[in-house]
Amino acid sequence: MSAEVQKILKQADAVCFDVDSTVIQEEGIDELAKFCNKGEEVAALTAKAMSGSMTFQESLKVRLGIIQPTLTQIRDFVKIKPPTLTPGVKKLINLLHSRNVPVFLISGGFKSIIAPIAAQLNIPVDHIFANRLKFYYTGEYAGFDENEPTSRTGGKAVVIEFLKTQYNYQKVVLIGDGATDLEAAPPADAFIGYGGNVIRPIVQAKAKWFVTDFNEIIDVLNH
Amino acid sequence: MSAEVQKILKQADAVCFDVDSTVIQEEGIDELAKFCNKGEEVAALTAKAMSGSMTFQESLKVRLGIIQPTLTQIRDFVKIKPPTLTPGVKKLINLLHSRNVPVFLISGGFKSIIAPIAAQLNIPVDHIFANRLKFYYTGEYAGFDENEPTSRTGGKAVVIEFLKTQYNYQKVVLIGDGATDLEAAPPADAFIGYGGNVIRPIVQAKAKWFVTDFNEIIDVLNH
Ligand SMILES: [Mg+2]
Ligand SMILES: [Mg+2]
Repeated sequence: MSAEVQKILKQADAVCFDVDSTVIQEEGIDELAKFCNKGEEVAALTAKAMSGSMTFQESLKVRLGIIQPTLTQIRDFVKIKPPTLTPGVKKLINLLHSRNVPVFLISGGFKSIIAPIAAQLNIPVDHIFANRLKFYYTGEYAGFDENEPTSRTGGKAVVIEFLKTQYNYQKVVLIGDGATDLEAAPPADAFIGYGGNVIRPIVQAKAKWFVTDFNEIIDVLNH
Repeated sequence: MSAEVQKILKQADAVCFDVDSTVIQEEGIDELAKFCNKGEEVAALTAKAMSGSMTFQESLKVRLGIIQPTLTQIRDFVKIKPPTLTPGVKKLINLLHSRNVPVFLISGGFKSIIAPIAAQLNIPVDHIFANRLKFYYTGEYAGFDENEPTSRTGGKAVVIEFLKTQYNYQKVVLIGDGATDLEAAPPADAFIGYGGNVIRPIVQAKAKWFVTDFNEIIDVLNH
């Protein structure tokens, strides 16, 4: 089963990465909540949301409604608590770039927080698909772009469909740790489950290829 | 008829002012459109909207959709093209303040542009009822607060109702140049039509008291 995924990886027109707990070691919104002193409130809500029937957009709205991050808090967060790249991810992305395979980041997190990570990885800004926070003139939190596909359940699949149509990609690989990543293949032609930061049992069980170290992917690309 | 309005003015618990073409000489959104090089496009749209059946919120959305003002443009606009106070308005507001009559600004314009005017007039920020622009982290235009009553047809009446309930005001006077001001009385207990910057025929015809100089109001208050 993993051989099939590995074959597609070697021929990939593009590789898409999830961000939280994949490209970076943290879950961005949880870290932001802690930074804004709302960590416990948001954690309680997340637990509640997971046991209920909230849509992704509803849970995003409620969690951001608790955090109410200001423009200044986002700036400070990005500066003071920058996310930590997962070991090996930069090497893997550099390898893909050296072979002219475009890399995309697809995330239910926030573009303002992901942009500095993308810059470190030489991923252009227009290769980031993520949610966009809004602020009032005075910097107060003003919501998020509810039209962004990544703010919705099933949004990652919508982004991958868009990439395939827009760029005429035939083979798109998606790498991620979560159930929402798993569910985006198809339309992704292959999915690699990543468990180096956290292992989600459903992803480990269902992914045709599951790795816990990006070097496993690098090794396949090099052989 | 004007005597009745003048009597209420002398006993007023609060005086509310429209902003565009009343407190200031300009129409804020038209000036902003010109500043962003969209003056003609917005003027054409405004003419079209006035002959059609667009709601205030629809027309606001379309005009802002054309202007797409960035955070930087608003900052520059406020700095480079500050609005011009209408002669006599500062003297009138100072007189009201000296008698402990609270003054409010109620506008279909934007809080970010009105705030510096309010500051010049010693009107506290929480006495401004106006629309709030939204921006993305990178400063691009991201819409406006559609829940703000002033973004809607009939919104000025909603604000005046709110003030009467919130502060238990019995007598509220509204001063303005436009039809939307006229329509907000009632709930405003008295309306003064102001034609010093532009005369709207319907307002001139229907206002029980119509002035073209704020000194007319000052004279009444002083006698
Ligand atoms: Mg993830
Ligand atoms: Mg006006």
